Amino acid sequence: MNDLAQQLAATRLVSRHLGSLSGEAKDHVLNSIACSIEESGVTLLEYNRKDLAEARSQSSKALTNATLARMTLTQEKIEQMARSVRAVATLADPVGKILLCSELDEGLELKRITCPFGVIAAVVEARPDAVIQLSALAFKSGNALMIKAGSEISRTASALLGIFKSNFEAAGIPADATVMVKTREDLHELLKRHREIDLVVPRGSSELVRFVVENTSIPVMGHADGVCHIYVDAAADQNLAVSVILDSKVQAPGTCNAVETVLVDRGIAGEFVPKLFKLLQFGAVKVRGCEIARELCGGKIEMVAHEEWSTEYGTLVLAIRVVDGVKDAIGHINRYGSHHTDCIVTEDECNAARFLREVDSAGVFHNVSTRLADGYRYGFGAEVGISTGKLHARGPVGLEGLVTYKYLLTGRGQCVSHYVGPRARRFKHELTAGEMRSDSATSL
Amino acid sequence: MNDLAQQLAATRLVSRHLGSLSGEAKDHVLNSIACSIEESGVTLLEYNRKDLAEARSQSSKALTNATLARMTLTQEKIEQMARSVRAVATLADPVGKILLCSELDEGLELKRITCPFGVIAAVVEARPDAVIQLSALAFKSGNALMIKAGSEISRTASALLGIFKSNFEAAGIPADATVMVKTREDLHELLKRHREIDLVVPRGSSELVRFVVENTSIPVMGHADGVCHIYVDAAADQNLAVSVILDSKVQAPGTCNAVETVLVDRGIAGEFVPKLFKLLQFGAVKVRGCEIARELCGGKIEMVAHEEWSTEYGTLVLAIRVVDGVKDAIGHINRYGSHHTDCIVTEDECNAARFLREVDSAGVFHNVSTRLADGYRYGFGAEVGISTGKLHARGPVGLEGLVTYKYLLTGRGQCVSHYVGPRARRFKHELTAGEMRSDSATSL
Repeated sequence: MNDLAQQLAATRLVSRHLGSLSGEAKDHVLNSIACSIEESGVTLLEYNRKDLAEARSQSSKALTNATLARMTLTQEKIEQMARSVRAVATLADPVGKILLCSELDEGLELKRITCPFGVIAAVVEARPDAVIQLSALAFKSGNALMIKAGSEISRTASALLGIFKSNFEAAGIPADATVMVKTREDLHELLKRHREIDLVVPRGSSELVRFVVENTSIPVMGHADGVCHIYVDAAADQNLAVSVILDSKVQAPGTCNAVETVLVDRGIAGEFVPKLFKLLQFGAVKVRGCEIARELCGGKIEMVAHEEWSTEYGTLVLAIRVVDGVKDAIGHINRYGSHHTDCIVTEDECNAARFLREVDSAGVFHNVSTRLADGYRYGFGAEVGISTGKLHARGPVGLEGLVTYKYLLTGRGQCVSHYVGPRARRFKHELTAGEMRSDSATSL
Repeated sequence: MNDLAQQLAATRLVSRHLGSLSGEAKDHVLNSIACSIEESGVTLLEYNRKDLAEARSQSSKALTNATLARMTLTQEKIEQMARSVRAVATLADPVGKILLCSELDEGLELKRITCPFGVIAAVVEARPDAVIQLSALAFKSGNALMIKAGSEISRTASALLGIFKSNFEAAGIPADATVMVKTREDLHELLKRHREIDLVVPRGSSELVRFVVENTSIPVMGHADGVCHIYVDAAADQNLAVSVILDSKVQAPGTCNAVETVLVDRGIAGEFVPKLFKLLQFGAVKVRGCEIARELCGGKIEMVAHEEWSTEYGTLVLAIRVVDGVKDAIGHINRYGSHHTDCIVTEDECNAARFLREVDSAGVFHNVSTRLADGYRYGFGAEVGISTGKLHARGPVGLEGLVTYKYLLTGRGQCVSHYVGPRARRFKHELTAGEMRSDSATSL
């Protein structure tokens, strides 16, 4: 057994223990981690400076300014990290929730109860805040964590995980509960361990997510692309449409929930497209489009080639296509979109209902900015990620996305043979409806 | 585009329509399908006779008696199929359930609402009843279905789907909603279509499931193996243990929830193992075991080799291993088991609680037969399958396993820019708690 395999075996064993911790115990540890982060400010800044110096010196890597900014710690960011850990502590414990309770027969009780996945592998880029957030969320949900951070922040990430580990040990929790995966080779190996890793959570660029998806048979929670659409219906409030489009494109063009394509009903295209084009130019947005849109923009935009409709520009570029009504718009979105978030702007309730029903995306919006697709704005407290898969969690995923459930059946010797044949007992199936909590995770 | 691709495109388009059907409309169609099945008895029996004649004549295939029995229709089985379709009609509509409703801000409403997957591919063996059941469940859950049945029942399956199609058409639903996949080549092609197929449901032998899992990147709902355990604790009621073990092994040894390995605590092994061995021999069960178990059985059983502990015998064979208490038992189960269903027999509540908590399986039982792991016995009305995956549905899966959800956000022009900066509005996040139904699927 190599080092990684040994580590994985140890972490897998610890994961059993984590599922038994009470919510109070976990929150206590998280709060002390938050204090330690604040107290370790000087040390953290020092490790971070070394990471930064090395990153700058390796001209071969040519890190962008955005990457350097994201990996740079400041006193303010350290305080923000501590706050984010405390925020996770305030969330309800997702483990041990009784989702269903049914008396199948006298003395034969079935419970569906939430439980951790076990071991989660997280892959993040060179972002110290992502390391902190995923470590806190994994611990709160009772999961052990193997985390690979961008190698540019290896010292910073290691120091941050060190804070988790020392607080774990002070609370009698094995330090193997949160483990740093150091090399790309180890990550490759990890992604092959489908018997030992229960879930992979990649957070970062679509390249990162695609790399993970293509290199593992373990379930992945995440999304590669955010090709979001806004359809402007003939019955749209056009001023509302313009402001929703501008917010969806300009407010943060690099995010996955920014809009990439605007579809405009043919009936209003002659009026709306030139107006929109002017305002987009004013907002420094580069416009591209279909042939009709190009004509309506006085030939001043580039044409979009067939396969380009599936492109996530991720910058101040927007494509416009003229379509024949809501049915055509739905067809375009379901074909070229990435099932992330799509919006209709209309005052026609009938078209809105059809759009909401038939668009096959995690978020389907009516008269609002696509940028609102976000765990915090949805009120989930913390966002593990946004999922475009249809199994398990879809859309913005909070803490509940890191737990699964199992069925517990308890009785006093009931056998299937009692329920078959001429003198068979009958099941009662008496449901105790609704969600509730078991008194404590350990009493389950 | 070849035939299959054309069919798939048509089915995908129809699937949008299916999600909009009301529960009443679907139940009406299902009830008329049930009547048509009863009325078509003579025709169905005729097609089935042709299938059987061909199957018997192809000696190269050497079908077992069990397979022949399963593929044979009788008047009674036809009536049973009609009843099973009526039973699906009585289930609550799984589509359009509002799982969460939150007023994020005044006039900004978020709903999490159940919706169909879209297109489901089902793969079943030569079982007419499985064809009927999956077709009914897929339709009730608003999904289009591409179904491949064992080629031995091609005429029977085609006639059964014909009944669905003609009833669909009579109700104004395109016949493409349920499509038969005829060849193995088409199935292979289908399993590659991850952009067009949302979920694969294989029902049948573990070979079938493994074939599907290994040949697709589409999410699969199912389980390949059922390696179930019963752990007999030192504090067990030994008579209860014996009856639970016998029921779990003998009542239906070929099923996935039958027990394969019994673990016995060392403290009672000397007394319990010889007693169990005698009763198992009486029940014609062939016993195998670890070295200690072998000694306790007077050397009369074969030893189990290391890797054999993960074997699903699927017949009247049982392995016995002596372990050092509950911790050791949990370790064995999590290592060698298939995360299906595992049981502890004990009067010690503390050991029971630990077992229920730490065993990483879809079903974890206390003092009851593993054979109780079943959708009907759990009270789910109809079973789509048993899942050992941790994402989405786990354990016996009812109709709810065939739907996913999406987020609908409706407002009047709200933008992210309203919620940032010095004059930012604040979110309310006012939850309307609990589950409810939208008045009708079409009013969503």
